[in-house]
Amino acid sequence: MSRPTVSLIVLAAGQGTRMNSDLPKVLHRVGAAPMLHHALRAGQSLEPERVVVVAGHGAEQVARAARAFDETVEVVVQAEQLGTAHAVAQAAPLLADAPGEVVVLYGDTPFIRPETLERMIEMRARHAVVVLGFEAADPGRYGRLVTRGEDLDRIVEWKDATDEERAITICNSGVICAETHLLFSLVSEVGNANAAGEYYLTDVVALARAKGLSAGVAICDEAETLGVNTRAQLAAAEAEFQSRARAAALEDGVTLTAPDTVFFALDTFLGRDAIVGPNVVFGPGVTVESGAEIRAFCHLEGCHISRGATVGPFARLRPGAELAEDVHVGNFVEIKNAVLDEGVKVGHLTYLGDAHVGEHTNIGAGTVTCNYDGVNKHRTEIGAHAFIGSDTMLVAPVSVGARAMTASGSVITEDVPAEALAVGRARQVTKPGLATRLMEMFRAARDASKKGTN
Amino acid sequence: MSRPTVSLIVLAAGQGTRMNSDLPKVLHRVGAAPMLHHALRAGQSLEPERVVVVAGHGAEQVARAARAFDETVEVVVQAEQLGTAHAVAQAAPLLADAPGEVVVLYGDTPFIRPETLERMIEMRARHAVVVLGFEAADPGRYGRLVTRGEDLDRIVEWKDATDEERAITICNSGVICAETHLLFSLVSEVGNANAAGEYYLTDVVALARAKGLSAGVAICDEAETLGVNTRAQLAAAEAEFQSRARAAALEDGVTLTAPDTVFFALDTFLGRDAIVGPNVVFGPGVTVESGAEIRAFCHLEGCHISRGATVGPFARLRPGAELAEDVHVGNFVEIKNAVLDEGVKVGHLTYLGDAHVGEHTNIGAGTVTCNYDGVNKHRTEIGAHAFIGSDTMLVAPVSVGARAMTASGSVITEDVPAEALAVGRARQVTKPGLATRLMEMFRAARDASKKGTN
Amino acid sequence: MSRPTVSLIVLAAGQGTRMNSDLPKVLHRVGAAPMLHHALRAGQSLEPERVVVVAGHGAEQVARAARAFDETVEVVVQAEQLGTAHAVAQAAPLLADAPGEVVVLYGDTPFIRPETLERMIEMRARHAVVVLGFEAADPGRYGRLVTRGEDLDRIVEWKDATDEERAITICNSGVICAETHLLFSLVSEVGNANAAGEYYLTDVVALARAKGLSAGVAICDEAETLGVNTRAQLAAAEAEFQSRARAAALEDGVTLTAPDTVFFALDTFLGRDAIVGPNVVFGPGVTVESGAEIRAFCHLEGCHISRGATVGPFARLRPGAELAEDVHVGNFVEIKNAVLDEGVKVGHLTYLGDAHVGEHTNIGAGTVTCNYDGVNKHRTEIGAHAFIGSDTMLVAPVSVGARAMTASGSVITEDVPAEALAVGRARQVTKPGLATRLMEMFRAARDASKKGTN
Repeated sequence: MSRPTVSLIVLAAGQGTRMNSDLPKVLHRVGAAPMLHHALRAGQSLEPERVVVVAGHGAEQVARAARAFDETVEVVVQAEQLGTAHAVAQAAPLLADAPGEVVVLYGDTPFIRPETLERMIEMRARHAVVVLGFEAADPGRYGRLVTRGEDLDRIVEWKDATDEERAITICNSGVICAETHLLFSLVSEVGNANAAGEYYLTDVVALARAKGLSAGVAICDEAETLGVNTRAQLAAAEAEFQSRARAAALEDGVTLTAPDTVFFALDTFLGRDAIVGPNVVFGPGVTVESGAEIRAFCHLEGCHISRGATVGPFARLRPGAELAEDVHVGNFVEIKNAVLDEGVKVGHLTYLGDAHVGEHTNIGAGTVTCNYDGVNKHRTEIGAHAFIGSDTMLVAPVSVGARAMTASGSVITEDVPAEALAVGRARQVTKPGLATRLMEMFRAARDASKKGTN
Repeated sequence: MSRPTVSLIVLAAGQGTRMNSDLPKVLHRVGAAPMLHHALRAGQSLEPERVVVVAGHGAEQVARAARAFDETVEVVVQAEQLGTAHAVAQAAPLLADAPGEVVVLYGDTPFIRPETLERMIEMRARHAVVVLGFEAADPGRYGRLVTRGEDLDRIVEWKDATDEERAITICNSGVICAETHLLFSLVSEVGNANAAGEYYLTDVVALARAKGLSAGVAICDEAETLGVNTRAQLAAAEAEFQSRARAAALEDGVTLTAPDTVFFALDTFLGRDAIVGPNVVFGPGVTVESGAEIRAFCHLEGCHISRGATVGPFARLRPGAELAEDVHVGNFVEIKNAVLDEGVKVGHLTYLGDAHVGEHTNIGAGTVTCNYDGVNKHRTEIGAHAFIGSDTMLVAPVSVGARAMTASGSVITEDVPAEALAVGRARQVTKPGLATRLMEMFRAARDASKKGTN
Repeated sequence: MSRPTVSLIVLAAGQGTRMNSDLPKVLHRVGAAPMLHHALRAGQSLEPERVVVVAGHGAEQVARAARAFDETVEVVVQAEQLGTAHAVAQAAPLLADAPGEVVVLYGDTPFIRPETLERMIEMRARHAVVVLGFEAADPGRYGRLVTRGEDLDRIVEWKDATDEERAITICNSGVICAETHLLFSLVSEVGNANAAGEYYLTDVVALARAKGLSAGVAICDEAETLGVNTRAQLAAAEAEFQSRARAAALEDGVTLTAPDTVFFALDTFLGRDAIVGPNVVFGPGVTVESGAEIRAFCHLEGCHISRGATVGPFARLRPGAELAEDVHVGNFVEIKNAVLDEGVKVGHLTYLGDAHVGEHTNIGAGTVTCNYDGVNKHRTEIGAHAFIGSDTMLVAPVSVGARAMTASGSVITEDVPAEALAVGRARQVTKPGLATRLMEMFRAARDASKKGTN
């Protein structure tokens, strides 16, 4: 069966008053990514032709975030928030002539699974409109779906429901799928004669049924429909995301000593038999190959760690850090935008930024690539099998050749050829007895100062 | 209604044998503060005229902690621990002539809420003695309160209770409030004719009722009366405290990525839309303005972080660190007793202590303020828009002027005027081929040493 | 009663397919030790004459780990995994003539308690074969033990059990104890006429009963028999281990601010009134004396911390770090194979490796012992009451005498006598106005480069 043509509408206009925040609700993060990205990612699995985000509150910020996910995402602004049907209607000018299906998702509902959306699309063969429902453990005041098998008779709001209808536990997620022209046509008929004076997308089901069209219901896990309205719910969504990511990693053969203390991002990738100690935070864009080890207390973003490499404890890898096989990055070390070739060791108290280090080179404790002159950033190149002595300052742009050495405590301002030793430090002078005399002076100063204050 | 005059007695004499500790029980910490401070803080909301702490075990330490909370707190010593009524009696010489009400609290019961105490005071208009009770989920062997509405008939100890009385679920917290002279008069009548030979404060209710006086019961949440007798209970109290603090922060519009990994102190303040990553520990005295960000793995005490500032990951701010707007403090950086003006950047591996840094100055990696000469501490002053090169040692007392620079690797021992460049490092000398020859020597040494050990 | 002679067989041959790992199952870690070590440690409490580990998958790795626990452990290889009776039979050539009892344990069952094993041994006085059973909360498909008092009639596999037998909740742990010759004799009679074609150790009970011998059942907590087959179960076992270790520490009078964030190793020792902050990871081999304090975010392995010492936050102690009384190790400090005498202070950003520091010496921020020349490691000796200035490089082998000082920023390559001051740094040169001119140059460079890219 050829894949049907699909468009996606993601509703992302709400302010999220109950978040008590200046940040638009859909930009609050789960798994280090805006919730909006989660919804876009779920929808992306349908390989949509067109994706339209309906923004409102903080529309510019939302538009920027949408395009950061994928440049081809289109954004329309819903100037007034008059309800979900009104929001969908804003996309009509863009999608009116789009062929195939349209799926409506929500930017504050990050957990819908691709398989669920595919099931909805597949059901469209049998129903004009497909609604996503879930079996609620505690249905509370959710709208109820009155069904016969996979047929959806109607959606009843809680306040309008009879006792019998309230006993139904299949509830409405709000996610909906229909042929594009039909959906916009139905949406244009939705009225706002209700207490809130809003246009509800839900009403398209009654309108379709009134035209003798069939509606169907796809059922998903309640957890998929978890929405976020408060910061406590955001924290709960984060916990749910982490819980899934941890379980998936264990399933994939990753060793997590203390899974509950490891924080994943939406796109974290860990290979089989990778080892992750307690208290590790993965920001966006991290890939770790099989058999690499991330020790306790590491913070990683936008980096790649190859097979056999060991990182931490207390290491920070920032975007552009690439560690080849068997590299070791130790404690209190920061790596940014730097490629470390096979077998490089950076044991302690070091900052490497905007650099390339050749294979099997050893970087001493306290080394710094001085990559910033107050205005510009410059690069440092270090060859293979080199030895950078402790506390070497590499004043970029600068290079150190293969098998070269720098003496500890040196400031390297000129390129060092291969096999050369560079020294940039003063000779030691030792002054017998002077320590004792200095200490006496310091103590006298202290005593004098005490006297002064009395 | 004018506020009634109130005195406070806090019982803090117990050893806490089951804590298995040399530290007096009330000095064990919850939310980075001694439990005693929690009780004092709750009582302080009544704006008491006088506060008396009854100390016993470790009385000196307890007295010191009490006065650290508030210098005006008075301390009496209960030399022998003969029961709660006996403890209260120790305060009589100090408070006998105090007008108004007296409230008795417990130093090992940190969660009583100010509203609860205010309710007790308010009930005193209708009752000579007011006792604080709680509805127990599992009443166990707690004393039961026999009540009619808000009237308290009597308190029955579990061992003396009938089956019917044991079915009562309203239990005695021990917190009590009465007019000062009445309380001391009743306390003086309490006997010790019981199995333990102790004088129980609880007995004042029966004595008051026998005189035809009315007793009332105020009800609070069971969680408020959580007491601490073992380290496991202390850990549970800490967990309860953190759970409340996290929920309150979320409610206030703070973003906590992983609330369960953030540890608050009793006095932590976080503004709306402040962002706190996973694994952040707040010690006492931290204030964070709206929109500031504390990244993962930070440890903060006694510091202020202004709007737009970013801290961490892996940063430590110690008492006296003040970060103005848009300051950035990065990884493996320690700031102590130092003011950083607007826009200062301290990115990596730095110690700033006893210092002032002017606005928009950039501090290079590996910078240290050498503030200690082995005897005295000295200050470092850095002007605005300056550039401190990596690995600069600032040997205090010393100053660097506005728009001045220090070359990386410099030891600065003399003041640097504005706009000047200070260099304190040796020139680089490069010796061709010497690295290779040195490595050969080192390998020969290794081989010789191996031979020697065979 | 004299202690009976005991041999131990630990089955450790399984691949653990469901672990999805290249590492043999029994080598996955709980409490920073291979699960195999937990089983060996439990068995060791019986003071066994002989210990035989039956290895199979990854036999070499398993053998190495077994001998790392105790050099006297013997290892036999079960080339094909044909069942538990077959595994036990592999030990027969080694133990056939061993006197006394043999106990069979499992390398993937880390929580059996010494007391439980001792109870089994004691029951051997009354029964030829003793099997360890547990009361299962959810018996599922475990084998059932059909018992009368402590007599074991037979073991019924779930699939062969009647409904009545399935209602039994006492299940088979697989742990077994018998006189050595009897066990091997019974094992040699076990057949493999079952669906899996495997030889089951369980069958020895039926064989013994058929000979008219008595079998007994010892009951333990279900938690003791927790086995590990998947990574999720491994994580659960780790959680169980940590939960026990935390409770035990609290019971022993240790202060754990946030117990759930502290990770213990199998052999961690903490004295009474030791204080441990949030987020502390103990690797193997750590001992902390009474009253020492480990602050938040520390990582410790193979080290000793004495009374009154304070460590962290953000400190890493590696094997061989020994901190005497009242030592302070502060933030971003790494100590490896170094002895710090009483009262030494190492406050910030320092690496001390292969060193000895005399009492009351102060080590400045940014100090590094340059202990590695690219080939060999060398030692640093620092005397008592010395003062090492910030950013001192100690190029080992080197010594600094008592009461000596090093100037901050110095590279120390020659021994410093007692009371001397060593300086190895260039004098400061200050160039008026040059900072401003340099910044102008840098900005011009930036603007030129921008032009070039347009």
